Amino acid sequence: MQSYAEMSKEELQALRKKLSAQYKEFQGKDLKLDMSRGKPSAEQLDLSMEMMNVLNSDSDLTCEDGTDCRNYGVLTGIKEVKELIGDMMEVSPDNIIIYGNSSLNVMFDTVSRSMTHGVMGCTPWCKLDKVKFLCPVPGYDRHFGITEYFGIEMINVPMNEDGPDMDMVEKLVSTDDSIKGIWCVPKYSNPTGNSYSDETVRRFARLKPAAPDFRIYWDNAYGIHHLYDHDQDHLIEILAECKRAGNPDLVYKFSSTSKISFPGSGIAAIATSRNNLEDILKQLKYQTIGHDKVNQLRHVRFFKDIHGMVEHMRRHADILRPKFEAVTSILDRELSGLGIGSWTTPKGGYFISFDTLDGCAKDVVAKCKKAGLVMTGAGATYPYGKDPHDCNIRIAPSYPPLGDLILAMELFALCVKIVSIDKLLADKETVEKTVAPAESKAEA
Amino acid sequence: MQSYAEMSKEELQALRKKLSAQYKEFQGKDLKLDMSRGKPSAEQLDLSMEMMNVLNSDSDLTCEDGTDCRNYGVLTGIKEVKELIGDMMEVSPDNIIIYGNSSLNVMFDTVSRSMTHGVMGCTPWCKLDKVKFLCPVPGYDRHFGITEYFGIEMINVPMNEDGPDMDMVEKLVSTDDSIKGIWCVPKYSNPTGNSYSDETVRRFARLKPAAPDFRIYWDNAYGIHHLYDHDQDHLIEILAECKRAGNPDLVYKFSSTSKISFPGSGIAAIATSRNNLEDILKQLKYQTIGHDKVNQLRHVRFFKDIHGMVEHMRRHADILRPKFEAVTSILDRELSGLGIGSWTTPKGGYFISFDTLDGCAKDVVAKCKKAGLVMTGAGATYPYGKDPHDCNIRIAPSYPPLGDLILAMELFALCVKIVSIDKLLADKETVEKTVAPAESKAEA
Ligand SMILES: Cc1ncc(COP(=O)(O)O)c(C=O)c1O
Ligand SMILES: Cc1ncc(COP(=O)(O)O)c(C=O)c1O
Repeated sequence: MQSYAEMSKEELQALRKKLSAQYKEFQGKDLKLDMSRGKPSAEQLDLSMEMMNVLNSDSDLTCEDGTDCRNYGVLTGIKEVKELIGDMMEVSPDNIIIYGNSSLNVMFDTVSRSMTHGVMGCTPWCKLDKVKFLCPVPGYDRHFGITEYFGIEMINVPMNEDGPDMDMVEKLVSTDDSIKGIWCVPKYSNPTGNSYSDETVRRFARLKPAAPDFRIYWDNAYGIHHLYDHDQDHLIEILAECKRAGNPDLVYKFSSTSKISFPGSGIAAIATSRNNLEDILKQLKYQTIGHDKVNQLRHVRFFKDIHGMVEHMRRHADILRPKFEAVTSILDRELSGLGIGSWTTPKGGYFISFDTLDGCAKDVVAKCKKAGLVMTGAGATYPYGKDPHDCNIRIAPSYPPLGDLILAMELFALCVKIVSIDKLLADKETVEKTVAPAESKAEA
Repeated sequence: MQSYAEMSKEELQALRKKLSAQYKEFQGKDLKLDMSRGKPSAEQLDLSMEMMNVLNSDSDLTCEDGTDCRNYGVLTGIKEVKELIGDMMEVSPDNIIIYGNSSLNVMFDTVSRSMTHGVMGCTPWCKLDKVKFLCPVPGYDRHFGITEYFGIEMINVPMNEDGPDMDMVEKLVSTDDSIKGIWCVPKYSNPTGNSYSDETVRRFARLKPAAPDFRIYWDNAYGIHHLYDHDQDHLIEILAECKRAGNPDLVYKFSSTSKISFPGSGIAAIATSRNNLEDILKQLKYQTIGHDKVNQLRHVRFFKDIHGMVEHMRRHADILRPKFEAVTSILDRELSGLGIGSWTTPKGGYFISFDTLDGCAKDVVAKCKKAGLVMTGAGATYPYGKDPHDCNIRIAPSYPPLGDLILAMELFALCVKIVSIDKLLADKETVEKTVAPAESKAEA
């Protein structure tokens, strides 16, 4: 494959023509494809339909300790679900609070509580002139949405293959006491799909924050969301590592079963130190009488234990794997060697991250849309929706059926090619314009 | 019946002896009775067990507009549940947001949002020196808990038979712009069981608050929780009345199915004007991707429509009615005419309010506890847990089986008698002490 950068203006123009014809063909197909969000497919949701059967009118809805799950009470979750989610999050049930259906909601509440009441006795953030969060980029748009909503200044930190740039994190966190948090998706990250290395986790656990109320927001949304049986990323468990490092209160760990059972009808949880839990409970006891215990029981009766959950995730993987592989093989086939894009090949999670040439992402997404394919908005993976290089695009392979996905990725690759050519041609023109007058001057 | 106040010291002492013997008997029974919270009984919960059958693995979990309820999305609730809850709350589905399982959580979030972001463009409350709420008393402890948690100053307003003292409410609200809200349980109020009169509702709708961000927190938790078929309280619908009065944005209305289906596993909602909804949505879209739609669907499939819900409430009433009547008939039999207590006789809701002689409530509750009966803590019905007259006790008849309830109320009445006698005797002693020295002086 010849790299586009090496092609002459004429070669590029000729190719552009050919690709335009292909694009027109796509437009003629009247496609309606949506790859904008990381939603499980209907086929995946079917995997959990048995969950609708585990409780019926003859069921005993009492949990192990005798509590009637149909009634009020049990603020932090029933024992057996704490055990299940504890195993899922690799922490002791004693370090867990079970919430409602959304971990995002738990993160929101955590920031909101810090704003109004502060963290473990520190000044409430709303009383401070400036509060900042570090944001590894590209990252999850809804994280950035929460911090933006609360007027928290976001600082981009590059996300590398082994995690955020830890030199930068360490430096900033240890010197600036207005930095109160960092958003982390440590495993099969949204959107890169990369996982933090052991060294990265160790360095996180050993941070020496200038702010005593600095916390790591460790959103382990994809903790057991592997694509492969034998090639899985593994993380050092962060709570234990923080404890070992003498930093027991440094981290809030979040997770949910949104992409295990049903998104929107799962259960979410926070795991953290006893001190942090106590701090959180001071809020929680005023916020609600308790979360949905019937749904907690439903989850326990369905999955039974962590082994049941792991087996269940294997079935998800069987559906997701071909889709991820279709995406990367189409990208390989269509784009490798052209020098106009790079992408990740995750071993789990819900996303693949694609980088175009600088300044092309928005145009690629727009061009896809004009032919009936909705991608996640370009820029969405950056705070304030501003990708400084306009190059990152999040690919979400899970939702469309495989046939649609293949079509969508072919269209996507085509759009990348066209937009890249336009970019390269425009660059050449700029060069000509700057060079040409100089030449004519020399001639004169 | 002779009023205790008219009895002589000797008569009271003799009676005290007799009652003490009865109390000892109760203590010998080793009772474990809990009337502390307004929880439905197991028998009531059984009424909703069919709800566990309406969705099973063969069910189509798509809602009317084609949305797969198992997946992410639909931030404000599915259309058919908005219709059902709209009918329940007597408002248009367009004025509703469906939340998770707890209306208390919605109220908490509403206050929290006002703290951090303000109400419809007004200054966030956390930036103000002083924020106050009016609290009709006796009232619901968890309301007061929320405002206390946020450092909001609470001002007691007497709750009369037809609602809060509206002269006081109007005067305070129209003159003090630091008053930002009032907690209302307008129907079958917690704990008095009284409902607001038409005039009260009309005056609420016509308030002229000094603060543009003043809102009425209209917690209609017991909107359809009648005890009788033909003798029901009826409220003027507050949203419509506010609109008619030219005050469309004045009220947030809250409700949930906690005491219709399952407490903790029901669905909650807010109903308010379009302007307020827009304001709320600015927060909600960052807070979560969506609430539990499967549970929404479950509720709709179970109740079908408001008629189904009303029929269901009739079955609740059949269980609750005998309990309420047992309480009031025991109080009648044991205490009427004695001048040592007064109580309400609600036609719905979950509570009966009891007033002892001044300074007796704490002692009565403590005395009950010593014989194995846990009542709601005295003072709980007042902000900061401080009942200025130490006289109000909330009676929650719903949870215990009828037999236990009868026993509990007999014990309760006995404790009221004993504590009242002690109080009257102590009063007599004080009078003697103050009178006696004066007399001896006169003699000297
Ligand atoms: C990293 C990450 N965290 C959280 C969520 C949402 O979690 P929940 O459904 O528990 O609110 C997502 C969903 O895409 C996600 O990618
Ligand atoms: C007046 C009132 N509001 C709200 C609640 C709790 O509502 P939810 O279960 O929807 O949080 C109660 C429960 O006792 C109540 O009495």
